[in-house]
Amino acid sequence: MTTTSTYVVEGMTCGHCVSSVKEEVGEVEGVTSVEVDLAGGLLTVGGDGPVDPAKITAAVEKAGYKVVSQG
Amino acid sequence: MTTTSTYVVEGMTCGHCVSSVKEEVGEVEGVTSVEVDLAGGLLTVGGDGPVDPAKITAAVEKAGYKVVSQG
Repeated sequence: MTTTSTYVVEGMTCGHCVSSVKEEVGEVEGVTSVEVDLAGGLLTVGGDGPVDPAKITAAVEKAGYKVVSQG
Repeated sequence: MTTTSTYVVEGMTCGHCVSSVKEEVGEVEGVTSVEVDLAGGLLTVGGDGPVDPAKITAAVEKAGYKVVSQG
């Protein structure tokens, strides 16, 4: 089962920010793909099964940013 | 003889950008200190002698940003 979740992330301003988020989120258990739309502040996470949203939020915070909502 | 020069840099948006600029400018011949004021877009370069402004401009561009004026 593949899964996709979208999060709105606050504070990303440039390509370096995108790289940081991708790196941290990519390390979360079950995550197989990470895409970021910088202009819209959107983070899309693909998985090969359920991915714990709390772990995604924690990874985003570890990178230095904040999840403001989950779509 | 110590020298100090200030440049206005366009495009830096976050701490990662500051780090990139500091790294590149810090490698320029004669540069002994690099400070960046992100909010104001100001780059202050200290040297132990004359530092070639063209080399500073090139280093900033290598980091991905642009010098718009020198003060």
